[in-house]
Amino acid sequence: IINLSSCFLQGILERLDAGEIVIGDGGFVFALEKRGYVKAGPWTPEATVEHPEAVRQLHREFLRAGSNVLQTFTFYASEDKLENRGNYVAEKISCQKVNEAACDIAREVANEGNALVAGGVSQTPSYLSCKDKAEVKAAFRKQLDVFMKKNVDFLIAEYFEHVEEAVWAVEVLKESGKPVAATMCIGPEGDMHGVPPGQCAVQLVKAGASIVGVNCHFDPDTSLETMKLMKEGLQAAKLKAHLMSQPLAFHTPDCGKQGFIDLPEFPFGLEPRIVTRWDIQKYARKAYDLGIRFIGGCCGFEPYHIRAIAEELAPERGFLPEASEKHGSWGNSLSMHTKPWVRARARKEYWENLRPASGRPYCPSVSKPDGWGVTKGTRELMQQKEATSEQQLKELFQKQKF
Amino acid sequence: IINLSSCFLQGILERLDAGEIVIGDGGFVFALEKRGYVKAGPWTPEATVEHPEAVRQLHREFLRAGSNVLQTFTFYASEDKLENRGNYVAEKISCQKVNEAACDIAREVANEGNALVAGGVSQTPSYLSCKDKAEVKAAFRKQLDVFMKKNVDFLIAEYFEHVEEAVWAVEVLKESGKPVAATMCIGPEGDMHGVPPGQCAVQLVKAGASIVGVNCHFDPDTSLETMKLMKEGLQAAKLKAHLMSQPLAFHTPDCGKQGFIDLPEFPFGLEPRIVTRWDIQKYARKAYDLGIRFIGGCCGFEPYHIRAIAEELAPERGFLPEASEKHGSWGNSLSMHTKPWVRARARKEYWENLRPASGRPYCPSVSKPDGWGVTKGTRELMQQKEATSEQQLKELFQKQKF
Amino acid sequence: IINLSSCFLQGILERLDAGEIVIGDGGFVFALEKRGYVKAGPWTPEATVEHPEAVRQLHREFLRAGSNVLQTFTFYASEDKLENRGNYVAEKISCQKVNEAACDIAREVANEGNALVAGGVSQTPSYLSCKDKAEVKAAFRKQLDVFMKKNVDFLIAEYFEHVEEAVWAVEVLKESGKPVAATMCIGPEGDMHGVPPGQCAVQLVKAGASIVGVNCHFDPDTSLETMKLMKEGLQAAKLKAHLMSQPLAFHTPDCGKQGFIDLPEFPFGLEPRIVTRWDIQKYARKAYDLGIRFIGGCCGFEPYHIRAIAEELAPERGFLPEASEKHGSWGNSLSMHTKPWVRARARKEYWENLRPASGRPYCPSVSKPDGWGVTKGTRELMQQKEATSEQQLKELFQKQKF
Amino acid sequence: IINLSSCFLQGILERLDAGEIVIGDGGFVFALEKRGYVKAGPWTPEATVEHPEAVRQLHREFLRAGSNVLQTFTFYASEDKLENRGNYVAEKISCQKVNEAACDIAREVANEGNALVAGGVSQTPSYLSCKDKAEVKAAFRKQLDVFMKKNVDFLIAEYFEHVEEAVWAVEVLKESGKPVAATMCIGPEGDMHGVPPGQCAVQLVKAGASIVGVNCHFDPDTSLETMKLMKEGLQAAKLKAHLMSQPLAFHTPDCGKQGFIDLPEFPFGLEPRIVTRWDIQKYARKAYDLGIRFIGGCCGFEPYHIRAIAEELAPERGFLPEASEKHGSWGNSLSMHTKPWVRARARKEYWENLRPASGRPYCPSVSKPDGWGVTKGTRELMQQKEATSEQQLKELFQKQKF
Repeated sequence: IINLSSCFLQGILERLDAGEIVIGDGGFVFALEKRGYVKAGPWTPEATVEHPEAVRQLHREFLRAGSNVLQTFTFYASEDKLENRGNYVAEKISCQKVNEAACDIAREVANEGNALVAGGVSQTPSYLSCKDKAEVKAAFRKQLDVFMKKNVDFLIAEYFEHVEEAVWAVEVLKESGKPVAATMCIGPEGDMHGVPPGQCAVQLVKAGASIVGVNCHFDPDTSLETMKLMKEGLQAAKLKAHLMSQPLAFHTPDCGKQGFIDLPEFPFGLEPRIVTRWDIQKYARKAYDLGIRFIGGCCGFEPYHIRAIAEELAPERGFLPEASEKHGSWGNSLSMHTKPWVRARARKEYWENLRPASGRPYCPSVSKPDGWGVTKGTRELMQQKEATSEQQLKELFQKQKF
Repeated sequence: IINLSSCFLQGILERLDAGEIVIGDGGFVFALEKRGYVKAGPWTPEATVEHPEAVRQLHREFLRAGSNVLQTFTFYASEDKLENRGNYVAEKISCQKVNEAACDIAREVANEGNALVAGGVSQTPSYLSCKDKAEVKAAFRKQLDVFMKKNVDFLIAEYFEHVEEAVWAVEVLKESGKPVAATMCIGPEGDMHGVPPGQCAVQLVKAGASIVGVNCHFDPDTSLETMKLMKEGLQAAKLKAHLMSQPLAFHTPDCGKQGFIDLPEFPFGLEPRIVTRWDIQKYARKAYDLGIRFIGGCCGFEPYHIRAIAEELAPERGFLPEASEKHGSWGNSLSMHTKPWVRARARKEYWENLRPASGRPYCPSVSKPDGWGVTKGTRELMQQKEATSEQQLKELFQKQKF
Repeated sequence: IINLSSCFLQGILERLDAGEIVIGDGGFVFALEKRGYVKAGPWTPEATVEHPEAVRQLHREFLRAGSNVLQTFTFYASEDKLENRGNYVAEKISCQKVNEAACDIAREVANEGNALVAGGVSQTPSYLSCKDKAEVKAAFRKQLDVFMKKNVDFLIAEYFEHVEEAVWAVEVLKESGKPVAATMCIGPEGDMHGVPPGQCAVQLVKAGASIVGVNCHFDPDTSLETMKLMKEGLQAAKLKAHLMSQPLAFHTPDCGKQGFIDLPEFPFGLEPRIVTRWDIQKYARKAYDLGIRFIGGCCGFEPYHIRAIAEELAPERGFLPEASEKHGSWGNSLSMHTKPWVRARARKEYWENLRPASGRPYCPSVSKPDGWGVTKGTRELMQQKEATSEQQLKELFQKQKF
Repeated sequence: IINLSSCFLQGILERLDAGEIVIGDGGFVFALEKRGYVKAGPWTPEATVEHPEAVRQLHREFLRAGSNVLQTFTFYASEDKLENRGNYVAEKISCQKVNEAACDIAREVANEGNALVAGGVSQTPSYLSCKDKAEVKAAFRKQLDVFMKKNVDFLIAEYFEHVEEAVWAVEVLKESGKPVAATMCIGPEGDMHGVPPGQCAVQLVKAGASIVGVNCHFDPDTSLETMKLMKEGLQAAKLKAHLMSQPLAFHTPDCGKQGFIDLPEFPFGLEPRIVTRWDIQKYARKAYDLGIRFIGGCCGFEPYHIRAIAEELAPERGFLPEASEKHGSWGNSLSMHTKPWVRARARKEYWENLRPASGRPYCPSVSKPDGWGVTKGTRELMQQKEATSEQQLKELFQKQKF
């Protein structure tokens, strides 16, 4: 195995324009929550300052698994978010410090393997609480200043439920002159204001994004449905852009418009939904066939899931990732097992066709999302007005026998 | 929260004799396989030499989650095993080097938190291929030499399917003068020669083990059934020993005598079986109620599972682990979520009663283990005689329409 | 309980026009297959001649359960169908004899309870093998002659996959001057030529049907979705007609456009999908709320399912059916059970919220329909051209790796 | 196919002694409940007087399906039971009348096909409320008087939870001089007083039963486990008797000692547990292989299930039942279907291996029985003392947080 990735150290757009497959990384907040460094609920990235070694190690594992892009661990690192959740942070850590540390760690690891560093911003409390455009943009600009100072390779606006806010983010990031990617956390039904995926994609490209797509909230299959709609929207508008998908590593065939957050299992009972490496190989193939060339993952994606993308697309790329030294393609490392029936599992057909049991006979196979039955109007109300008092919401619910 | 663990830096037996709860660590081979450092199939620990930073980080996460004992990552590190699988190791690494590095890393991290270091040995290919007692003991002694040189705090003989070999291991480890724990990877049906759990426990204690129990192969519920039988065996024989359990973090209600290895999902499709943190809290409580005081985990146990043990038993122990800084007890960190139905999940009753869906409606809830229907005689034959030629086994299977 | 049904012995349209709820009957071919009188595959009704006592008893049970309409057991009783399957019938029985016997039996039982008799025709092999309009209509006319001679109360054209053929049937039946109802065996995706449900309804009403709706192929929930589309289609076209639904009594959330026939369980493994009486009560309520006033069932509907419709709508109708003498509303007959936990089930909330287990942990909860993956073109080809040779189909499948 | 059953019109013991397979009938109370003639809760057989045509038709269907024995529909027809539940019976019908009518109907149908008539008694409220032996025996004798007057061919004491009462029943029935069969509604754990199956069988044979076994409460698989224990008990005691099994037609892998009554789905939500005809063929084969020669069914067994027994054992018996005129062996009647993928189901391997889906993705695959967690002592108390006041039970439950 010769890792040829070193041959093409170029910018993200050069790579994509040349037809290369670019592999993204996986989910930081979920992985680090399980490792003990991120708190579920706030989901903020103060670990970059508090426990850099843990963040560094996770970056390294993704790099080793095949990631060509390391995203700075700056999810929910806007000042308004960090302040909001400040009480969770042991000692008060400034927004700037968190973002700077994130850039330093990502660059340090990226240099171990010629990967690119992408500075990332995500949706803000300011937007949800109806602050105006200027204020929201100011929050993004604050993070951008750090990214410029630390000279990241390109920028990603990700995890937006409203295309309006995503457009504002892209506009700010474009001021930098660096390439901008933008992904929304939406499903085929579109954004929270009802803008369909195709239109979202069009607006983002018009705002300046060179790469568009989805991340988070939905499983690979659902996300690829959304991607198909985005692609069609761009084609209809005769716009060109690269496509990017970074879905969940959880099966969510049963979730509603707002994705996995409404599932009763979110966030502490999602285990039985975790996708296998074989599910990911199918995802990678389907994404590729759909024309997506920036393929990664979001919450739930562990290093071995990223490796599965790299292994599935190894024939197209011509090389395997480093971590494949510790992995036989399609389970072939089982061929030396002492039991013949385990040796019999060392083949593609076996894993491709396995329908894995949950070991949970008392549990159902799907759930009804919470919020089910709430009228669209109310949901949007609740969505948009974080300010709505607890009492008001209670009344709304009672009226709807929610 | 005041972490009192520093107050009782003493030996393992002093702690247990004083009635303390000792929390073990989780599973290394499965966690590091997913992180890209261990190969499924051989499952050998050459990462101690090849990627010490990855091993160190995992130890650190377990420590932070509450582990009082760090086991050296020396699973399957006997010389005969490493040689056997030697072709998997990139550059030839000596058995001694692997074991020494494992001790150094464990000690380094243990010192960050006053944990104990336990040197571990596990079952050997030599025994399975019918080598004699002297030869098998020699393999253990080779590892023990390293543990003595590195001065580990105590010793664990773990993952034995045959009590006969476990007894030999204990006899060797006892030569050191250090406390010895011994755990078998068996279920309520007993060891592969048919020795019931109660008798296994008796033989291990008579051989010199101060702590006995089970690890691996079965889920928490099944493992606690086995523990109950061990406890009753010891009581009937009027023997005293401390009890220890380190089960899988996979639900396996459907497996046969040989445990999860025979499940069709082993080892690359076990995701839907992964236990939640709440399952672990139930396990910790039940283990405690059964009188077990050395409580940890094996394959599938991630740092957050260990933290769940520490959180469940915090009332008895009087303190929380460090990693609980990033975890609200029973989901209370969700109380600040923007959606009222997610806030409604910030309570014990919710998570305690959740029956999590798999998101896999096309999959069954349990599986039939492979090897099902093979007569007991044949299974034992296959088990014991690794030497049996492929052709012979094939004939045996065909005869049985296996 | 006073059965008021005798008070309104009037024609079907008088009843419906007056706003009454009319309850249909259940499924004959499935019920009689289980009782030993109908052969799965041909599904023909020669039992009317061979075993009239069995047909009579089933009619009687539906009447007793609350049916206001008894359909003659003339499903698939067109001459071309009976001939086609002639080899299954022990002694050669003429089409006319089967249809006459069916009318006589239905009338005999209807007179026991003032129910109406409806003569029924269904789709023909002639249409599927591309015979022309005249030939297909001739087949319907042959059955209609019997219905006129026996003076049935009204006519039903049911179980049509193609609206074109259904329209032809309605045109023939309208020649009689009697009221005509027409139901198609389609789901929300529409008929096999792609005509959507709304348009199907419009065409049927324009052809002369006074009552339109769906029967068979889909479960209650899916069928009501289709009914909603039919209703909307009629409204948009400013047409008036009564609505009628007679769905399956099997849960089929997983079937494709062609309904339950493509499910791998059809027809001998459908047991775990059988709906409960409580499912039917929910269906009856939803159907009523949607404005449907002719409410019955198709395959799988047993007498107790029909009773459940009558019990759910008893408040609106003012009376219970005879068979409710042997049934406590919402399980209240359990209130005298000896075990307190069984007594605790004698209430509406219990049964309404029960999520019944399958007792089949090795089975999935849903299936992939056969024919899955076959392109639309091929399916339609196969659908329409019964003449296509076995060899041609085989080739088509192989090409598609079906 | 020549139906040879007419050749061997002989007594039940002559048939069994000659090694013949005798096929029993199915479940009356469940089938007639669904048809509208029996009330769930009391489960009494007044339909023999109220609706003889419905009872007659069901007997006829079982006969046609292959039953060699028609049991009088006298389940729960002891005077104390009928009185107890008298309020459910429209007009007061005497115990004697119910039993006489049952005998007449069974004989009438039996004569249509040379079947035997068996008079049946079952457990009594008198025993459960601790009446003495003389009183309980008097209840059985009253029914026996009718059976003697009507000259049934032999007698069955069935559905006993306590072997003590079953022995009393056998003793009374033996007074008649006719052959006596006795079946208990128990599982492998034995009767409600803790007498294991092997001992139950021994006591029944010693009391005079020539045929022993189980009926009701458990699914085929569990019932055959119990039968195995009965057989071993008889062998150990060197007693000879014929074996008989009549299990449920519901899958109940999850029920406790008291069987399906404790399942939350009992009795109105059992549909997803209904066994297929293929399950029954497996049951018939296993029962035969175990040496059972009187093979029938209980609650849930419909005529097509009985036919499945007859079809499975047709090779051994040399003939098919009448109802097989309407059934192709292993689904071969599908071979003429128009869709190739349905034709592909016309074979044994297909149906043998089908794992049928429930169509209920929101439901679990198994349930926890009610009464779960109640201590053995309390359960037995509740079981035995019907007299226990509601208040006392409530207190007992509260104490146990039941």
